Amino acid sequence: MNEIEAIDLIVNRLGPAATGKGVVIGPGDDSAVVGFDPEEETVVTSDVLIEKRHFPEGSPGDLVGYRSVAVNISDLSSMGAQPRYLTIALTADSIEESWLLAFADGVRACCLETGSIVIGGNLARGPKSIAITALGSVLRGKSVTRSGAEVGDEIWLTGTVGATAVALQNFRDPQIASLEELLERRNENALARYFLPIPRVDFASHLFSFASSATDVSDGLVCELDQLSRNSGHRMQVDVESVPVWCGANPREAIQSDDSYELVFTAHPCERTEVTSVAKRTKTPVARIGLVQEGDGVHVHEGEVMIEVDAGYSHF
Amino acid sequence: MNEIEAIDLIVNRLGPAATGKGVVIGPGDDSAVVGFDPEEETVVTSDVLIEKRHFPEGSPGDLVGYRSVAVNISDLSSMGAQPRYLTIALTADSIEESWLLAFADGVRACCLETGSIVIGGNLARGPKSIAITALGSVLRGKSVTRSGAEVGDEIWLTGTVGATAVALQNFRDPQIASLEELLERRNENALARYFLPIPRVDFASHLFSFASSATDVSDGLVCELDQLSRNSGHRMQVDVESVPVWCGANPREAIQSDDSYELVFTAHPCERTEVTSVAKRTKTPVARIGLVQEGDGVHVHEGEVMIEVDAGYSHF
Repeated sequence: MNEIEAIDLIVNRLGPAATGKGVVIGPGDDSAVVGFDPEEETVVTSDVLIEKRHFPEGSPGDLVGYRSVAVNISDLSSMGAQPRYLTIALTADSIEESWLLAFADGVRACCLETGSIVIGGNLARGPKSIAITALGSVLRGKSVTRSGAEVGDEIWLTGTVGATAVALQNFRDPQIASLEELLERRNENALARYFLPIPRVDFASHLFSFASSATDVSDGLVCELDQLSRNSGHRMQVDVESVPVWCGANPREAIQSDDSYELVFTAHPCERTEVTSVAKRTKTPVARIGLVQEGDGVHVHEGEVMIEVDAGYSHF
Repeated sequence: MNEIEAIDLIVNRLGPAATGKGVVIGPGDDSAVVGFDPEEETVVTSDVLIEKRHFPEGSPGDLVGYRSVAVNISDLSSMGAQPRYLTIALTADSIEESWLLAFADGVRACCLETGSIVIGGNLARGPKSIAITALGSVLRGKSVTRSGAEVGDEIWLTGTVGATAVALQNFRDPQIASLEELLERRNENALARYFLPIPRVDFASHLFSFASSATDVSDGLVCELDQLSRNSGHRMQVDVESVPVWCGANPREAIQSDDSYELVFTAHPCERTEVTSVAKRTKTPVARIGLVQEGDGVHVHEGEVMIEVDAGYSHF
């Protein structure tokens, strides 16, 4: 199998995830051509997942495929954007047909769940990694940035944090279950949740109506709150006891080291009804976990006790 | 220096290449937000450059930066699109400040030359590679694909092919010359041409007015002609003696193994004046190198002699 045959194999397996509305020219030419609604702005994000760093060595292709797409969609969601198109550049030491097909299955599953379409990509030889660029759309002027939090706003979190640590402590070959089965078990199985984070696409499409700022949890909740703090110039105060934590996870660890790709956002207290009503409509668990205050940095306490936290996560 | 500091360093060094028209939200948030003209469609391409595979180990950062951007812009040009925005995901084993700054210099040089803006990216730890997604724009319905060649059309090539082989035979540390100096020497120095391919942006913006199909030379001219042949269902006949070849290169090798990122396109004979007039206006060398005929495959001859060629280039 040469490179062109491998690309054909993947595109065929993607099926409906590689064709659709707005695609003028899809995978196979020098570039793809797509259309956007003139009422909307284009939202663009890129992320790279590298074996051993962003997923364990030997991870099944379908889980890697799903996770790769989901983490990029998450960056669109945290701007309040709707996912539209993806390019996927896959680098691998060799072409293993079964792994490639499984990878395509995972990509397809997340694309169909989030309404996104693969419009192009690249296949090159090298250490296994996946570089994805996701394009989304948002109503003109309605994107939600990291910088808008105001003193008095409340801090909210979707879902739970802490599955990552539990999952990676018990990493076993999850091929024992099919992708479909693991998708069903995302609410109880940490490994399923780690590989198959839940894209908060529907909820995110309403962010503009209540959120003053937002981001997603890719480097730990404390680190993300530190970003919201730096970008707004205000202090983020969080009570650990109010943070929904994955069953079995240590709460203090769960807020510092976690890539659950949940959304963390701020909203004025008068938006509380709106937040909970959207959450109910989109079946998204949400919790109020803190307050935006005057000052700077992230201020974490557990009941009456202040906790020292480290927001200095770095990939290097 | 941690990851956030390294990203700030790069974005600062990019200067005018990281801000500009149409950018609503630039680098630094979860995603970038950009606007496109409603009269236009969005053109999207992704390419990955891996050390030792797409550039020699130990290559200077500024040359790698320029080349990485240029090869992506080339994929937009071959659709007849104007470059607009880029995301750049850089993976490296460690953060070497001097290499990063040089890389940013190279990116900036190619961005300023081509009118493109870096709107986001990613920095991760791993074997050195650069994954770029380039977004361009083209008038609605005016993109040029690989599939439109008609029997009787003529085949054209911009610039020359063959610098790659000459360059890589003599790879020495090109840091002896500055980026500016090497940019000046692209027409005489093979290594400068290899690292700093000439983006044919201005010429490409007129492709829609005369070209029936187009692509760029990234895997050798014969391989690209094979793509045009497969996509149009016609035979591509080329005379080696009419192909402009880099000084010192073997013509037969030059047409089979070369990534000069020149444009190869087809046009009806009655467009000959238009092609040469646009070429003159945009200071782009062009040459007629063959004909589209009934049949299939690529048919190469040297004067009266048929040449066996291999179009089966594969990265694997």
